[in-house]
Amino acid sequence: MHQDRPIVRLLPGRDRRVKAGHPWAFSNEIAMTPAAKALPPGTIVRLEGDDGVRHGAWHFNPHSLIGARRLDTNPDAACDGAWFRARLAEALSLRERLFDTPQYRLVHAEADGLPGLVVDRYGDVVAVQANTAGMEAATPLIVEALAALIAPRGIVARNDSGVRKLEGLEEEVRLLAGDAAGAVVEENGLRFPVDLLGGQKTGWFFDQREHRARVARLAKGATVLDAFCHTGGFGIGCAVAGATQVTLLDRSEHALATAKEAAAMNGVADRVAIQRGEAMEALERMVGAGQRFGVVIADPPAFAKTRKDQPAALRAYAKLARLAATLVERGGFLFIASCSHHVAPGEFADAVASGVHRTRRHARILHMSGAGPDHPLHPMLPESQYLKGMLLHLG
Amino acid sequence: MHQDRPIVRLLPGRDRRVKAGHPWAFSNEIAMTPAAKALPPGTIVRLEGDDGVRHGAWHFNPHSLIGARRLDTNPDAACDGAWFRARLAEALSLRERLFDTPQYRLVHAEADGLPGLVVDRYGDVVAVQANTAGMEAATPLIVEALAALIAPRGIVARNDSGVRKLEGLEEEVRLLAGDAAGAVVEENGLRFPVDLLGGQKTGWFFDQREHRARVARLAKGATVLDAFCHTGGFGIGCAVAGATQVTLLDRSEHALATAKEAAAMNGVADRVAIQRGEAMEALERMVGAGQRFGVVIADPPAFAKTRKDQPAALRAYAKLARLAATLVERGGFLFIASCSHHVAPGEFADAVASGVHRTRRHARILHMSGAGPDHPLHPMLPESQYLKGMLLHLG
Repeated sequence: MHQDRPIVRLLPGRDRRVKAGHPWAFSNEIAMTPAAKALPPGTIVRLEGDDGVRHGAWHFNPHSLIGARRLDTNPDAACDGAWFRARLAEALSLRERLFDTPQYRLVHAEADGLPGLVVDRYGDVVAVQANTAGMEAATPLIVEALAALIAPRGIVARNDSGVRKLEGLEEEVRLLAGDAAGAVVEENGLRFPVDLLGGQKTGWFFDQREHRARVARLAKGATVLDAFCHTGGFGIGCAVAGATQVTLLDRSEHALATAKEAAAMNGVADRVAIQRGEAMEALERMVGAGQRFGVVIADPPAFAKTRKDQPAALRAYAKLARLAATLVERGGFLFIASCSHHVAPGEFADAVASGVHRTRRHARILHMSGAGPDHPLHPMLPESQYLKGMLLHLG
Repeated sequence: MHQDRPIVRLLPGRDRRVKAGHPWAFSNEIAMTPAAKALPPGTIVRLEGDDGVRHGAWHFNPHSLIGARRLDTNPDAACDGAWFRARLAEALSLRERLFDTPQYRLVHAEADGLPGLVVDRYGDVVAVQANTAGMEAATPLIVEALAALIAPRGIVARNDSGVRKLEGLEEEVRLLAGDAAGAVVEENGLRFPVDLLGGQKTGWFFDQREHRARVARLAKGATVLDAFCHTGGFGIGCAVAGATQVTLLDRSEHALATAKEAAAMNGVADRVAIQRGEAMEALERMVGAGQRFGVVIADPPAFAKTRKDQPAALRAYAKLARLAATLVERGGFLFIASCSHHVAPGEFADAVASGVHRTRRHARILHMSGAGPDHPLHPMLPESQYLKGMLLHLG
């Protein structure tokens, strides 16, 4: 029992969402008493309604817009090492049903019952991202639980996400345990180096795994342009699947250096050309020069970082769709994606449709879906479906 | 040139959607003059704006809510046998890129530039569905074009869709050419008999191909319940993938007889049990009896046949989700789908989430997507994404 666990109360009449099963309580739903305000960020509290209904054990942060995040419906849940190990074991057991190799997002926050925590597994090296003060405080327990469950060679804190600021946390990347040198991700039969401790973000986006496989299946015998290629996941997959020529385009020298290494690692360096530049400007130049490709991939970083960016982001997605579709040869394919949290799937689809319409070409939408199944959604957080991928055929 | 092609005009100020590229003009957007009203349903017309802008060649039906459907942006397009052959050839070329075997929806209406026409290909046998008066009139040209392109052994008119009524057409099923006996569909390495000329609907729903493969990959070593199983596509796929025991549940004796045949054809008759009954009632009884399965599939016929059915349909989907989720053992999977045109993807997801929430189990949404890529969407008709499949993990 945790009799000393502080109680935090929801405001009268503000318990509707929590009662419906939502895993968050917003700060304006919580009675921010002096005692509550004085609790250190990340304290485990019992959340109760004004009516005395007990809503379980929650991580509390009086300084965050998301004031509390549910850990357990049982207010007396220990939330200790054994508790973390049980949650991680369930997440692991699901991934082992879904994948043949130990390469996946092992923990995807709320959907895995671990709010604010992200864990990516690259075989024997693991990257942990704590996006809340509560998970920051729990990191030693998480490291212990990971060691007990999968005994990784190395564990890295990849705390370089901007959302940590909302919780009053600094960004940092550091080794938590063991050794993380020479980590490699394996996906769809390919290998890519991942530099987890490097100063620049060149980890791996597991969320596009199924989309990469889907696009690669269409690339045999085709020329391919991979715009915003990062370390080349899409384009190198296409080359291995039989594309005749692949152009990788990105602004980051560091990402392109890794992409070059990956092309060699997968035996397709001779068919992969690397081009450094601002992708949107480069696409405009290619359109001007009349270039065409059998398959075009446009997978940019989030255009809408905040809600107020959303209208500009939709215009940018429409422009990107227009340029990218123009570069597709007749009968070819366009894959375009958005990872903007602040752009809903329907809004993105409409922006892409309007951009493609401006090319006056007959387009078919072949597929639309989100991140792979190692990025589950919490049923009460459908808005957390941040990734939206669309595959189109251009007639 | 088609100088004798009648001209039909859009009403002043009602050309916005057509100008934006929408492939339909609604009857209340069209100047229904006595001359227009006198045109036989299915006439090919030139559609023009009140401003004289030419919008191309359209199928026209003065008696239908969708008054005109675009065939070609060129008002002088011949729309003859060669024109149909070119459209079919483009649709065929796309499917040949997408699939290794000739088993697919070959034409998916507007998205394939052939409004109102559906063609399914089962190897050497083809089923044609003309859902508009225009496509009904063009059927001889379509049969000729199919013969020239793929020389099928048999072509069947599978005109048993209720939507034909909206165009003033009767339902009918008949042989158009050759011989269609003993047709078999091959999918994901499995074989199923399809009775295209039988009095009861036991064709095949190609739209769930990817979902069937996804669910089967999770079924190894599991018990499976396939509710609303039709001819057993999901359940028999699970049995072949290594499920220990599969229960197929449907109300249709005819569909279950075909499912039984399919189980034998795929060598899994010993692991497949067939149960006839109203699925929703049977699920309630199973819940009452405390039955549990490793994988549950719930793929009912459309609960919302019209827009006014929508609220009742959402309640029925929530109930189905609650019952089906209750039947999933801890750590198992639920696949649930809706093929109701009148239920949007977000509405369906919300209904499923609320039903699953009532089981008080921790659920993860692993995947949401629509029909396979042989059912493309027209970018201006996102509402034509009728199929919604959701895969959930139940903790």
